[in-house]
Amino acid sequence: MSLLVVGSVAYDGVETPHGKVERMLGGAATYIALAASHFSPVRLVGIVGDDFASDDEGILRDHGVDLEGLEKVAGKTFFWKGVYSNDMNDRETITTDLNVLADFNPKLPESYRETPYVLLGNIHPSLQKQVRDQATAPHFVGGDTMNFWIEGTPDELAEAIRGWNFILINDAEARQLSGHYNLRAAAKAIHEMGPETVIIKRGEYGAILFHQGEHFVAPGYLLDDVFDPTGAGDSFAGGFMGYLAEQGVTFGDEAAGLHLRRAMIYGSVMGSFCCEQFGVGRLRALTREQIDKRFEEFRRFTDF
Amino acid sequence: MSLLVVGSVAYDGVETPHGKVERMLGGAATYIALAASHFSPVRLVGIVGDDFASDDEGILRDHGVDLEGLEKVAGKTFFWKGVYSNDMNDRETITTDLNVLADFNPKLPESYRETPYVLLGNIHPSLQKQVRDQATAPHFVGGDTMNFWIEGTPDELAEAIRGWNFILINDAEARQLSGHYNLRAAAKAIHEMGPETVIIKRGEYGAILFHQGEHFVAPGYLLDDVFDPTGAGDSFAGGFMGYLAEQGVTFGDEAAGLHLRRAMIYGSVMGSFCCEQFGVGRLRALTREQIDKRFEEFRRFTDF
Repeated sequence: MSLLVVGSVAYDGVETPHGKVERMLGGAATYIALAASHFSPVRLVGIVGDDFASDDEGILRDHGVDLEGLEKVAGKTFFWKGVYSNDMNDRETITTDLNVLADFNPKLPESYRETPYVLLGNIHPSLQKQVRDQATAPHFVGGDTMNFWIEGTPDELAEAIRGWNFILINDAEARQLSGHYNLRAAAKAIHEMGPETVIIKRGEYGAILFHQGEHFVAPGYLLDDVFDPTGAGDSFAGGFMGYLAEQGVTFGDEAAGLHLRRAMIYGSVMGSFCCEQFGVGRLRALTREQIDKRFEEFRRFTDF
Repeated sequence: MSLLVVGSVAYDGVETPHGKVERMLGGAATYIALAASHFSPVRLVGIVGDDFASDDEGILRDHGVDLEGLEKVAGKTFFWKGVYSNDMNDRETITTDLNVLADFNPKLPESYRETPYVLLGNIHPSLQKQVRDQATAPHFVGGDTMNFWIEGTPDELAEAIRGWNFILINDAEARQLSGHYNLRAAAKAIHEMGPETVIIKRGEYGAILFHQGEHFVAPGYLLDDVFDPTGAGDSFAGGFMGYLAEQGVTFGDEAAGLHLRRAMIYGSVMGSFCCEQFGVGRLRALTREQIDKRFEEFRRFTDF
């Protein structure tokens, strides 16, 4: 089944201990779409400027991403630049030029409206709500958020996530949003804000799924080398939702719990691949065979 | 089979956000012995002063811990005092009074010498070596260390661990000892220093086993509340080795890998219980049924 994705399509400048790239294709929706495209058809909603290169559009099209919802307007594409610390656990944002994203007013093409799986990438919560409200038959809908919205637009965020089936959030932000340090308590509090399913991401340590009173701990993959962690969280989201859409998982049915767990592992697989090269390099070159091979690796290193 | 444990037997003063205890039974060997005692007979080597209370000795005896190797001398028992940060991820040492531990010269009673499983708790590496050299038939021997010895006595540490089958070490210390940030690379470098099996502890995130070119990721247990993390790493070590001794695991045989993985989970189980009360409170009150129930919980929250 199809997956609707909204979020930023961007150019990124990234510096890590392994090197420096001045300008490359990036943005939450780009990483999500490319990761998810290995599993299911993706419909993208976003905005770019007239500087958006046809080669970059080609990268998305080559992965079968539907770009009818990618608006192209006069001006410059959103630009972000960041520098990672030596251990890659911290990053400093050098530049955030919203450019055309500042006036983004997402409208779903008619052909997108009935998409059953909806993933709202990290943008202003009011825009997330606007997209969600235009979807006429969402079966499973949720999204990502960040400290910027938790601090800056708490009411809009609360309003947005009330209608979500799931939320993806990192551990520090889960603590911030809920006011609880303990992750079980944080997940419970966030659950009471709306989402029945709460996924807390822990960077290199993996992620935890809280669903129907149970939890599932997905470990992080031990990479030989982390080249560029940019987009890893979005790639996780893409693998997670791409797998659920591929399987056509019906929530409420008994098998949903097991599918969600496997989706967590596919998310972890895609997040780990993402870090192996700069930008979307690794996500572009992947085959489904490589993805499934790493999924089986997760079985091997967690089996007891 | 029996397990030989050497390490500090101490009094601890601990302050956490949940409360404060001025003086209670502690020390690496105490936590290891109590955790391991739920699995196998334990023989303890240590030293205490004449202030060591018979009630505290009784706690160890009640768990069947053999105290023939616990030397009692004139003077005061080792005392440590620490305060934990609000999130419990950091602790500040307020007091370290070595007292009788300063002149510890461990001698194995005759009845201890043929113990097949040997766990060298965190003490001066020369003392660890001294104990190991007195064991006449060690089948599986290894230990713990810390930044203090990595920085202060690197040559003695290198000399000690050369003869170990396994090493338990936390992630920051593994990086320090190996000079590698990446944990795969760190484990490989440490492996080349002697131990064929390397266990890297990651606090609340669990631990990783590196063994014969494979690795296994044990997740941390999500506690509802962490009361006092003191001794959690030692309880992990005790659960890990206690289980291996109980099973009489023979290294080199094919099933060893699977047993090591299960030992990692039993270690995690014991470490998680340890945090639920101040000091050794929770370890004392545990039943094997509760331990096995939590082991099964680990299966449930990792299964996909």
